[in-house]
Amino acid sequence: MNHATTADRLKRAQQLVAANGLDAILVTPGPDLRYLTGYDAVPLERLTCLVVPATGAASVVVPLLEQAAATASPIGAAGLQVHPWGESEDPYALVAALLPGAQAVGLDDHMWAAKVLGLRTAMPGVEQLLAGPVTSRLRMRKTPDEVQALREAGAAIDEVHARMAEWLKPGRTEAEVGRDISAAILVAGHATVDFVIVASGPNGASPHHEVSDRVIERGDPVVVDIGGTMPSGYCSDSTRTYAVGEPVPDFLALYEVLRAAQEAACRWARPGVTAASVDLAAREVIEASGYGEAFIHRTGHGIGLETHEEPYIVAGNELVLEAGMAFSVEPGIYLPGRFGSRIEDIVVCTEDGVERLNLQPRSLLILEA
Amino acid sequence: MNHATTADRLKRAQQLVAANGLDAILVTPGPDLRYLTGYDAVPLERLTCLVVPATGAASVVVPLLEQAAATASPIGAAGLQVHPWGESEDPYALVAALLPGAQAVGLDDHMWAAKVLGLRTAMPGVEQLLAGPVTSRLRMRKTPDEVQALREAGAAIDEVHARMAEWLKPGRTEAEVGRDISAAILVAGHATVDFVIVASGPNGASPHHEVSDRVIERGDPVVVDIGGTMPSGYCSDSTRTYAVGEPVPDFLALYEVLRAAQEAACRWARPGVTAASVDLAAREVIEASGYGEAFIHRTGHGIGLETHEEPYIVAGNELVLEAGMAFSVEPGIYLPGRFGSRIEDIVVCTEDGVERLNLQPRSLLILEA
Repeated sequence: MNHATTADRLKRAQQLVAANGLDAILVTPGPDLRYLTGYDAVPLERLTCLVVPATGAASVVVPLLEQAAATASPIGAAGLQVHPWGESEDPYALVAALLPGAQAVGLDDHMWAAKVLGLRTAMPGVEQLLAGPVTSRLRMRKTPDEVQALREAGAAIDEVHARMAEWLKPGRTEAEVGRDISAAILVAGHATVDFVIVASGPNGASPHHEVSDRVIERGDPVVVDIGGTMPSGYCSDSTRTYAVGEPVPDFLALYEVLRAAQEAACRWARPGVTAASVDLAAREVIEASGYGEAFIHRTGHGIGLETHEEPYIVAGNELVLEAGMAFSVEPGIYLPGRFGSRIEDIVVCTEDGVERLNLQPRSLLILEA
Repeated sequence: MNHATTADRLKRAQQLVAANGLDAILVTPGPDLRYLTGYDAVPLERLTCLVVPATGAASVVVPLLEQAAATASPIGAAGLQVHPWGESEDPYALVAALLPGAQAVGLDDHMWAAKVLGLRTAMPGVEQLLAGPVTSRLRMRKTPDEVQALREAGAAIDEVHARMAEWLKPGRTEAEVGRDISAAILVAGHATVDFVIVASGPNGASPHHEVSDRVIERGDPVVVDIGGTMPSGYCSDSTRTYAVGEPVPDFLALYEVLRAAQEAACRWARPGVTAASVDLAAREVIEASGYGEAFIHRTGHGIGLETHEEPYIVAGNELVLEAGMAFSVEPGIYLPGRFGSRIEDIVVCTEDGVERLNLQPRSLLILEA
């Protein structure tokens, strides 16, 4: 990220700070800080806080021992003033001193409670709201460079799914398969492994199952939901359901319903329709087939510098989609005690539809067993 | 973690909740939740919240799609009531309904601001304080099992330091060395790589430098500060400073001051002395040698399920150390534009001193170059 991008994003953030009736937003290490400044600081107990006021220059409060790292980051190149604090000083008082007369501030949605309360004490009477309406508004609409970063993340995780037949075999445990997948996620170019779900047989009915010592059996459907973060900071997330040998016929029937639902939502999604309507497009297909009660989660979530961010593709979210918005389309059907299935692609809104960023086959892959 | 441990920890937490004048603590996914219940949930935007009231049974609010995972965790074995919420329900109202008449609650120190504000709205007039005084009090004093887990983490990171001569060579970049170290951290048995600092030459003067494309030169001192999390959840963290070929004489002099300071603090630390006095023990040696201004951070931090937790070894912390407390002893000396050095061991208080959990040599290792 170069300093022109930092300056541009901070300027647009300031306009939204003012438009939201805030005096400033206060941003701690995490995806908002990385998005606005390019500074990828680790969230720790010492306060690092970017102050973006409605008017005037943005600046950043950092622990003295991180001053050199902050200055070497794009924060330094962008010319932001850096206010260091020593181990025995009160960093919250430093933030308060930067905002005399403030009445309302927006806090980073991910700010730790200990810091929220530290700021509350240092800035008594100042209303604490969230920075999300400012930062999500910006982060939701991806630039072409960001879409390209997500495309690369999608290609990297597709590479891992393409190798699944090497690892997914009867007699192996979910945990063993998971270890192979984790290694492959790094080999494919990710900087970190964020999550590895290998949910075989009845475990597939638990959407956020991770891995277990269950031994995979012949005929098991296996839900594999995996993702990581690329060196760019952008995330991947894709699910395929496999069958290890021929599954029972009613699983095949369920799978075809799911595939139709995922397809319907991807075909419906485009600029101008609401997030809720994309959820409905998938849900209608599943409900019409009698599995409505078994689709127990929303259809998707936005993705970018975080795996889960706005826009959320969920009933009640009347947000109108725009070109550049990126999100998952991942309906699932879960039958407790038996099995489950989920198909997930990341898509990004183009001018008149969506581009899928995950391209592995969506027909059921029955692995030799 | 078995359900007897969960029951015991929850019971002791409840006593402290009452003793701190709170009606309950509210714990979201992270180290406190893992410590109290063994449930290692991923922190995400949907609310998962353990409610530990001063009296009555603890229970947990979870997203419907994570109900199966929560029930399969030690939470289920311990018999905690699980309250699931669907995608269109308000989970904050669910928490509020569990605490009728509450006047003050303690929030997980790491709870996200979005959740702090969600609870504030759902529980108007209820004072929000921190859960830290309850959970840190418990987590600070390690049981023999926890000490053993930290011992294993220490041995694992020592294994990585023992191999440094394989990677740290003139002509290689810090980033290249960092990649080798990351792979070795996993090979040594860690489940995740948490941080890798390879700070060569002048970069060593920035305590929280990570890695860069700087090429390591003959004669460079290199600060290597690395750590990961073991499958047990317990963390490692150890720093050694290496020299790649013979360094300049004044670095050797500085290093000997640092080694004496680290040794003095480790010899001083024991039950009955304050955290601040351990900081002072290291600082006095460095100040006496004229480097006082160059030791710009505290001497250490507690470690356990988090890399940084209480007790903090810092001026002003009058906490009296007790047997079972584990923390880093890591003085450093930083000369901007030239070089820096840090030596870090994890120690745990025994009955009358400390046991060091990192055992790699602390004399300067001059690698062939």
